[in-house]
Amino acid sequence: MANVKCSIPKGTRDFLPVEMARRNYIFDTIRSVFRAFAFEPIETPALENLSTLMGKYGEEGDKLLFKVLNSGDFMEGVDFQESPNKVAARICDRGLRYDLTVPFARFVVQHRDQLAFPFRRYQLQPVWRADRPQKGRYREFYQCDADMIGSTSLLNELELVQMIDMVFSKLNINVVVKINNRKVLAGIAEMIGAPERLVDITVAIDKLDKIGLDNVRNELKERGLSDSQVAALDPVFALSGDAAQKLASLEQMFGNVEVGKQGVAELKELFGYIAAADIRCEVELDLTLARGLNYYTGAIFEVKAKDVSIGSICGGGRYDNLTGIFGMADVSGVGISFGADRIYDVLTELEGFPQDLSQAARVMFINFGPAEQAVCVAIASQLRRAGVATLIYPEAAKMKKQMEYANRRGVPFVAFVGESEMRDNTVTLKNMTDGTQETLAVADMIEKLK
Amino acid sequence: MANVKCSIPKGTRDFLPVEMARRNYIFDTIRSVFRAFAFEPIETPALENLSTLMGKYGEEGDKLLFKVLNSGDFMEGVDFQESPNKVAARICDRGLRYDLTVPFARFVVQHRDQLAFPFRRYQLQPVWRADRPQKGRYREFYQCDADMIGSTSLLNELELVQMIDMVFSKLNINVVVKINNRKVLAGIAEMIGAPERLVDITVAIDKLDKIGLDNVRNELKERGLSDSQVAALDPVFALSGDAAQKLASLEQMFGNVEVGKQGVAELKELFGYIAAADIRCEVELDLTLARGLNYYTGAIFEVKAKDVSIGSICGGGRYDNLTGIFGMADVSGVGISFGADRIYDVLTELEGFPQDLSQAARVMFINFGPAEQAVCVAIASQLRRAGVATLIYPEAAKMKKQMEYANRRGVPFVAFVGESEMRDNTVTLKNMTDGTQETLAVADMIEKLK
Repeated sequence: MANVKCSIPKGTRDFLPVEMARRNYIFDTIRSVFRAFAFEPIETPALENLSTLMGKYGEEGDKLLFKVLNSGDFMEGVDFQESPNKVAARICDRGLRYDLTVPFARFVVQHRDQLAFPFRRYQLQPVWRADRPQKGRYREFYQCDADMIGSTSLLNELELVQMIDMVFSKLNINVVVKINNRKVLAGIAEMIGAPERLVDITVAIDKLDKIGLDNVRNELKERGLSDSQVAALDPVFALSGDAAQKLASLEQMFGNVEVGKQGVAELKELFGYIAAADIRCEVELDLTLARGLNYYTGAIFEVKAKDVSIGSICGGGRYDNLTGIFGMADVSGVGISFGADRIYDVLTELEGFPQDLSQAARVMFINFGPAEQAVCVAIASQLRRAGVATLIYPEAAKMKKQMEYANRRGVPFVAFVGESEMRDNTVTLKNMTDGTQETLAVADMIEKLK
Repeated sequence: MANVKCSIPKGTRDFLPVEMARRNYIFDTIRSVFRAFAFEPIETPALENLSTLMGKYGEEGDKLLFKVLNSGDFMEGVDFQESPNKVAARICDRGLRYDLTVPFARFVVQHRDQLAFPFRRYQLQPVWRADRPQKGRYREFYQCDADMIGSTSLLNELELVQMIDMVFSKLNINVVVKINNRKVLAGIAEMIGAPERLVDITVAIDKLDKIGLDNVRNELKERGLSDSQVAALDPVFALSGDAAQKLASLEQMFGNVEVGKQGVAELKELFGYIAAADIRCEVELDLTLARGLNYYTGAIFEVKAKDVSIGSICGGGRYDNLTGIFGMADVSGVGISFGADRIYDVLTELEGFPQDLSQAARVMFINFGPAEQAVCVAIASQLRRAGVATLIYPEAAKMKKQMEYANRRGVPFVAFVGESEMRDNTVTLKNMTDGTQETLAVADMIEKLK
């Protein structure tokens, strides 16, 4: 079977060692911060029952779920005259995880008796979406989520902002954290007498930066708001100053609109915490921020890189009833998700990856033949036990070939054990960076490379 | 939508924090050894084209592949009168990875120009098989593979044995490494004049321990070997002594059977290396070992735990033509795969997991109210920056509730910042293990917990 074409499905990727090292640098950084904030790791299966996933991501999301064909005689008793959706539901019981949030909700409900609440979990796993692949959008990609569930304290929100700050400070990426609150948006809608138009209003406000105030006004009218309702939004568009000033104006504006007042109170408390905490990145109140609106009930977060033009690299918010869809009511949660792929792109553009990440071998022994190899094996054992990544070239090939291999693998030290080294119980070590060479006792060599 | 039933597909698992900690202990140990031997990490997508996977695992394997339904109108132009297999091939272009070996072969061929040969890769990723679930057998499970490809040197085989030794020595599991060589089995088949019956002979020999010599002889006759051919196997069954003695007898027995002689020569060289290396576990020659025979062409490895009755916990071997199926001939490789799930079961039975693995928080601050909380946030920031996993209870709940939470999370230290601590810039630290308590300056507390 010669020359089978080698390829992988569209929208998926292989990761070579250099890419793995860079990705692991990002994952390890995020994980170290999750751990510092005492989140606990969990994992859920890639395969979930489709009954768990369907209907949780809207109609569009249902279409983007990868469905897995039932095993055995999947066709038995199926009417193939039905619609593709109905047939798919009959021949596929399981699907691939679409995000980490719905499986987490399912997990919390299923294992609630084994968990200590407030439960803080993190989860770094791939998800799958049958989206049209394009630059920066994949069909298989990792999500890095941290959520705390079972506590309404705004200290949780503060901690998420601190975590964002710590992750991007460790990665040396300048970011701005944008914060909003769903209750403020609801308050605005109620204030202008259109509480049911919350989504329309938010979508329009969200476009303010891109299309300008006049176009936003026109769009709102097209969406069915009256002239007076649109005019009533003017004070919102006119808000200025820092977070505290905007919040003070909003509070006045809201008068007796309870939900809006509560949103302002929450934001005031959170911004108060943020001001007191030692947060190094920029944090701003952004009333146009509306991501995941169907879903969030309180705080909304989004993080953007300041020096690279790319979408958001982290986002999240508070949801008051996520586990409700699985029959467990009144559990409030708040969480964030880091976009590892976009962070990878940002670091690539900034040339922000540390230099020595992909160095998988610290030293390689040149192979001069059976007798010398035996000595190298013994020394390599000691190095490896000491945790030093060590290679022995597996054959007594030509020196040029062996050195080329060391170079291609980026090995910083090459070790020679020849006749004189064997006699003296030494190793000659060549520094591949500066070309210098020294002959050392074995113990000294191990000490040097550790 | 109240009370949706919460469950996951049969044969899949959720991993709770305690299980995650234990699994990560196993993965981290294996990974640390792979790294010490300078293997480089790669990852391949969970989704592969079915054309890559089909026909690589035998007819049975094809059935066990999870197939993913095509998106969009998957039914268009499909004749549902055809057999399930044919219909499945029409409506599914992609499937889930069944093991890490075939995707690795595909990877090597696809990226050969970017790799330095001999290429040493490791890969820890889940695989999926639509097997009937049973104790210890899952439909979604991790494989931990290391392979070196592009070198025929037996030093590679030695290094794999060293790696096995190091992994199980770190995990404190007593193991025996069994080694065989496909060429010796082929030599035996040729010697008795039945070279084409290699598989029958090996399957029968493999049962020697279980069913005894007479039954093995009967089975061989049932499988079509003549009485004289079966009798010619007697010297093989009669082999005794250590590896060196068995190999000496085999060498004599083989006379001019080239393939058998080559197998013996390889085993002699490998056992010579093993004797000279500082290997701590038991290593034995086992001529009944035949795993993956369709596949391996030289060395065959299998590892068993000595103190727990369970199948093999690691296995591998040399394959001379794995990439041939993708059109790249003459690339020899050798590799091993650790069975993380079985190793987990072994460590559970041996109570071999370290005690403090699941300790996700090192210290928890009791929350006495807003003023105290603000001080705790500042101290917690310093602790977290120093890498100390730190919790602040998010609400000023009753002390009993907060302490219960600390207990459930297994936090070893609880920190109190009350009025006097705020005044003196100190923290009172309670050791939850022995109940002792001390009041420390903040800097001293951080130093103590680091």
